[in-house]
Amino acid sequence: MQKEHLALTAGLVERLIRDGKYAAAREQMVDLEPADIALLLSEFPEGRLPILFRLLPKELAAETFVEMDNDQQELLIRSFSDTELQEVLEEMYLDDTVDLIEEMPASVVHRILHHCDAESRRAINELMKYPEDSAGSIMTTEFVSLTADMTVEAAFKRIRRTGVDKETIYLCYVVNDSRVLTGLVSVRTLLLHDEDDVISDIMESSIVCVQTLDDQETVSQMFNKYDFIAMPVVDQEHRLVGIITVDDAMDVMQAEATEDMEKMAAIMPSDKPYLKTGVLETVRARTPWLMILMLSATFTGLIMTRFEDALMACAILTAFIPMLSGTGGNSGTQAATAVIRALSLGEISFGDTLRVIWKELRVAFLCGVCLAAANFVKMLLVDRWMMHNPAVTVAVAAVVCLTLLCTVLGAKIVGCSLPILAEKLGLDPAVMASPFISTVVDALSLLVYFRIATLFLGI
Amino acid sequence: MQKEHLALTAGLVERLIRDGKYAAAREQMVDLEPADIALLLSEFPEGRLPILFRLLPKELAAETFVEMDNDQQELLIRSFSDTELQEVLEEMYLDDTVDLIEEMPASVVHRILHHCDAESRRAINELMKYPEDSAGSIMTTEFVSLTADMTVEAAFKRIRRTGVDKETIYLCYVVNDSRVLTGLVSVRTLLLHDEDDVISDIMESSIVCVQTLDDQETVSQMFNKYDFIAMPVVDQEHRLVGIITVDDAMDVMQAEATEDMEKMAAIMPSDKPYLKTGVLETVRARTPWLMILMLSATFTGLIMTRFEDALMACAILTAFIPMLSGTGGNSGTQAATAVIRALSLGEISFGDTLRVIWKELRVAFLCGVCLAAANFVKMLLVDRWMMHNPAVTVAVAAVVCLTLLCTVLGAKIVGCSLPILAEKLGLDPAVMASPFISTVVDALSLLVYFRIATLFLGI
Repeated sequence: MQKEHLALTAGLVERLIRDGKYAAAREQMVDLEPADIALLLSEFPEGRLPILFRLLPKELAAETFVEMDNDQQELLIRSFSDTELQEVLEEMYLDDTVDLIEEMPASVVHRILHHCDAESRRAINELMKYPEDSAGSIMTTEFVSLTADMTVEAAFKRIRRTGVDKETIYLCYVVNDSRVLTGLVSVRTLLLHDEDDVISDIMESSIVCVQTLDDQETVSQMFNKYDFIAMPVVDQEHRLVGIITVDDAMDVMQAEATEDMEKMAAIMPSDKPYLKTGVLETVRARTPWLMILMLSATFTGLIMTRFEDALMACAILTAFIPMLSGTGGNSGTQAATAVIRALSLGEISFGDTLRVIWKELRVAFLCGVCLAAANFVKMLLVDRWMMHNPAVTVAVAAVVCLTLLCTVLGAKIVGCSLPILAEKLGLDPAVMASPFISTVVDALSLLVYFRIATLFLGI
Repeated sequence: MQKEHLALTAGLVERLIRDGKYAAAREQMVDLEPADIALLLSEFPEGRLPILFRLLPKELAAETFVEMDNDQQELLIRSFSDTELQEVLEEMYLDDTVDLIEEMPASVVHRILHHCDAESRRAINELMKYPEDSAGSIMTTEFVSLTADMTVEAAFKRIRRTGVDKETIYLCYVVNDSRVLTGLVSVRTLLLHDEDDVISDIMESSIVCVQTLDDQETVSQMFNKYDFIAMPVVDQEHRLVGIITVDDAMDVMQAEATEDMEKMAAIMPSDKPYLKTGVLETVRARTPWLMILMLSATFTGLIMTRFEDALMACAILTAFIPMLSGTGGNSGTQAATAVIRALSLGEISFGDTLRVIWKELRVAFLCGVCLAAANFVKMLLVDRWMMHNPAVTVAVAAVVCLTLLCTVLGAKIVGCSLPILAEKLGLDPAVMASPFISTVVDALSLLVYFRIATLFLGI
């Protein structure tokens, strides 16, 4: 729904509530998607939230609850009667309940667990044991399981009986007596077969599945590769313990891309939306890397001080330092970004290091030659001739352009190899991006610059 | 499937083929997922491809074909007999055929269209008319449509009869005589109702849908928000023309994230994987922005030349330029990245500009004060006292740290406002990232530096 449309509906609902027309207000909401109702409710002052929420039919209320911010959820839970809490919890899928529990303060968690039935509580406790970012932590235990000796008719009977509470019914999993996963059958296949056909004859028996401890990023990449709508999760004995649905895989994919971008920009990742993150929290996420990078710029400062005499003798050299360090940083960033993304999409791995370096070397050479040539012409044409700056001699231009070529070469090599190295060492390659590489390249290019300048200009 | 496992299977299949054991080779492949078979086939020399491909059963062959690289697809099509081509095309979904046609050279396209039946050809031509990156360009026209007066039994009959060729059968769309979309019913709902229930009584009639010309990025964000597995696409008269399935939405989400990262790193986006992109192509994607940014560094050079006398009078000032420009660039990048991501996830829009700037202003002030304080201590402790550099006086440290604070402030404001401005002007905000902002901030911070230095140091 469009933002403007949402604001209009919010205004309308507000007027209706003020006039005591609750049934009409409810009418405005029930046709919306849960995600939109959650957005709508967030437009109202907090005090109104419980009243509005109580207008919703039970099932829709629970679906809306799942889509809300943690702050709103907490506020609602605190306003719920025990029966209301129980009703919402009953309608929620277990993986959503686990997500909720992980975000709530202890007193609320206690109340939630108290109002779950014994079986759910056991399942929740199991799910909470899986490490963050593991397949187990994003799976749900609510799936349809069948046995191999069932007929299609019996399978449909089971789906009809148990399907209401399952997150997806379209993929059904076949398990044996020890709960080991032996097959997969889709409702599509079931529909296209006769009622008396036996599951074991029509099921797929080679199934792609993940283990509880697999990384969630790997899982979301598998969804993307195989185009599944759900994927089974098994334990080490290949027993089926849960399923992951495509909507959760999409959330992971989005969150991982955001996290990579944040790390690449020297921000410590958070999982809150931009405007929901407080000022202090933002400062805490951004200052550490800025501080580290600022302090490591001490090295470039030292290099400059060391070559102070050279700079004094040929002051024009200073004017090109920002261009050199900017181009170096940008070149390195390009290579690093390309490699980091390829690593995270699984396109390359450590075994490809030499191929990557060889490619970047050739790219850097061609890029560097183009840039150096353009810069040479620009320095003589613009700086010397148009700006009448006699200090920009052919020798100075040559020094700057040779340094430029070396800087681009060095930047691309550093930029492409650091992320792969980080991955090999078990670090996140995204941290090796732009800011870090710029700092390294800055120091390198200054050293090269002064070296070449002293050689060629005799200073 | 793991890379190592894949290599093992490839070796095994190769040996079996060499020994003429074709049936055994086929056995090795038929249990794999199409995406894995495509990967497996890419390990063989090109000449072997047609033989291996012909071993696959018809349906699996078509599914594998869709997963292949364009180069492999072209090679296969050129080796296909007319019947083989027709068989593969029959099994393919229309949206995949359109994708294929868009990537193939004219002669191959001609052959493909020649072997489609008349109806598919018409549908393909319709689909090809939609602009790139529009909802229409990623939809398929193969969906299950029902009418409101059908019973559940009749609906299942139609699904069974026509479902084989549909990309998803789990969501069925209800249309009236003029093909206007009036409702949505899921197979789950159908299964949970009696055979005689009428569709109009059980269908959802308020449906989230997109228009053919909507941006594909908006569409993929809607999938993420609403957790759908398919979404209907309608024309301007609200007639149902196609559906988009979640796997295609996931592809879009991934491609858009990659594109944003590339743009943010000053790379012109390409849709090929890293190692598949040739050296020249990579150079062409990377050089233009590097060139533009390099030439715009002329301004910083001019500023430096203009203040040459000040730099000569107080040479130590030069030593802190890399640190100032680095920190400025990094601060700006942080703000820009946070805002670009929030824009592309739909968390903020132009209306939030003032809130965003107010937030960044406070963040920048706190960040800047922390950094300036740390830097002040570091300059006096490390540079002056430990390195015995008498030129680093308290006054110089004050000038550098005051500039640092101003630079962080300026960088965050520029960094957060340029992307929003770009979005408002209909440009891609991602282009306003790191490299561009660094260049702007570089010039600004130098101006501030020399201004403050002349004021405080009397040079």
